[in-house]
Amino acid sequence: VGGRRAIGIDIGGTKIAGLLVDEDGTVHERRERDTPAEDVHATLEQIQAVGAELAKGAAAIGIGAAGMVDFEAGVMRSAPNLAWREVPIRDLVSERLGLPCLLDNDANAAAWGEFRFGAARRYEEAVLVVTVGTGIGGGIIADGALYRGAHGFAAEIGHFIVEPDGPRCGCGNRGCWEQVASGQALDRLGAEAAREDGTILIARMAAGNPVTGRYVADAARQGDATARAIFDRVGRRLGEGIAGLVNVLDPEAVVVGGGVAEEGELILDPARRAFLEAVEAPDHRPDIPILQAALGNDAGAIGAAALALESLG
Amino acid sequence: VGGRRAIGIDIGGTKIAGLLVDEDGTVHERRERDTPAEDVHATLEQIQAVGAELAKGAAAIGIGAAGMVDFEAGVMRSAPNLAWREVPIRDLVSERLGLPCLLDNDANAAAWGEFRFGAARRYEEAVLVVTVGTGIGGGIIADGALYRGAHGFAAEIGHFIVEPDGPRCGCGNRGCWEQVASGQALDRLGAEAAREDGTILIARMAAGNPVTGRYVADAARQGDATARAIFDRVGRRLGEGIAGLVNVLDPEAVVVGGGVAEEGELILDPARRAFLEAVEAPDHRPDIPILQAALGNDAGAIGAAALALESLG
Repeated sequence: VGGRRAIGIDIGGTKIAGLLVDEDGTVHERRERDTPAEDVHATLEQIQAVGAELAKGAAAIGIGAAGMVDFEAGVMRSAPNLAWREVPIRDLVSERLGLPCLLDNDANAAAWGEFRFGAARRYEEAVLVVTVGTGIGGGIIADGALYRGAHGFAAEIGHFIVEPDGPRCGCGNRGCWEQVASGQALDRLGAEAAREDGTILIARMAAGNPVTGRYVADAARQGDATARAIFDRVGRRLGEGIAGLVNVLDPEAVVVGGGVAEEGELILDPARRAFLEAVEAPDHRPDIPILQAALGNDAGAIGAAALALESLG
Repeated sequence: VGGRRAIGIDIGGTKIAGLLVDEDGTVHERRERDTPAEDVHATLEQIQAVGAELAKGAAAIGIGAAGMVDFEAGVMRSAPNLAWREVPIRDLVSERLGLPCLLDNDANAAAWGEFRFGAARRYEEAVLVVTVGTGIGGGIIADGALYRGAHGFAAEIGHFIVEPDGPRCGCGNRGCWEQVASGQALDRLGAEAAREDGTILIARMAAGNPVTGRYVADAARQGDATARAIFDRVGRRLGEGIAGLVNVLDPEAVVVGGGVAEEGELILDPARRAFLEAVEAPDHRPDIPILQAALGNDAGAIGAAALALESLG
């Protein structure tokens, strides 16, 4: 059981998480360090340190990083949260650790983790993974493999303009999907509601702190109508966007992961209802289940490790 | 030169077009008949008649039809413009004509035609084809083949909700992309402008007839500011949606076809500008050209014939 092992690393804007993972997806060791996001060299040092601590018995290292990754070249072209531009992470890490290295987008890696070992493990062909945190990322499995597109940039699903005069997005557009259907939307709508009426439960829970989606979730779980309406609204936008992507990609199943998905039915129930209303010809296609992700924060590192092992052949 | 030939048939809501096409994509004969859209059996008779007239020397027949096609089963699941439901077109036509038959979505067939012999013939891997007529259809080429999804329904790109309170779409949703970025949008905005001010050029050209995109195009070509503003608005929405799809699919090139694309730069120029503004990280990815389709109305039948020939092996 288990066989070969690989290091899987997930580079986020605040944390570098490293796992030692075997071929069955079982995690044997874990390490975590802060991401010195402003400093490329310091971040590489941290990756090297995490990798070195896990390297014993590892046959390869897989890295999932948030940003536009050129998979073929192993280069991070542009990482908005890390201030990285054109960094050849794959070769730098491979040299430093003396292991074969694979670099992919973090959402691709997480999608692969959920496809191989998580919520979508019983599907074989085509799965859409939607990662809903502060923003929205994604991964597309097609014909049993990650779909990377012509240049390795595919599955940037959060930046479809769905509200022409909507909130300004980090990408420069207005009304990107991730502005209305992610944690940012919960934060914004919660703060707006609290500003309008300082006596609502969300405002009382925040008690003067900045209102975030977390307070909205806590209030919603206590049955607060304003908070539930916010989740309903954001969940519906999530489900509508998933319907649009299902129309384009026709997967067997959709997995919803990321921090917001951890709120469970609060977000998934309105998303599923809106999906069924919005998807094309639901009566003429098989059911497309919308599943909650199963691997939590480990999905990216587990998927990166699996990709690295599989690339060894 | 040429070699084997196949019949390619494009079943639209009003016309059935049949071509005899060789392996190089050259058209040798053509036939056209009306579509008796309300009557499945009469439509099949017309397909059979067109096919029989072209059958001499044909090794196969390929059909592209507007609607949700189950490619593996050869069944039209649901054709909104034809009132067809669950019709096994492939086997019915194959039996009647005694030829191997292939059935695909008309937009898939047109995409394949443009990829093999049209505007995208110099690309080899990944192309997005956007067909802009009354509505918006599409075809996705990935890894050098048509991407059909898990059930053959992929590339229904017109039904992404991009304007939550927008015009009602035939699919039941509000504000689908095809409502704001296609011929319907030109018709609607032209009619609205003429209603607001009956003295504008669009209204004078229509001279009491229902205002359609055709009058808007004619007025725009004469430099009319209102008409050009309508094309600018619709073209921008087209380009924004293309950007969203490019973010998801990362193709080498985009081909825009269909009747509206035949207006050329009137629609393509604002689309290209909006695309460049809206696509993610344009500085970090290779240029994605947005090309005008080259095969016109023949794309679907040429592509269907090519698919049928290729399926013979």
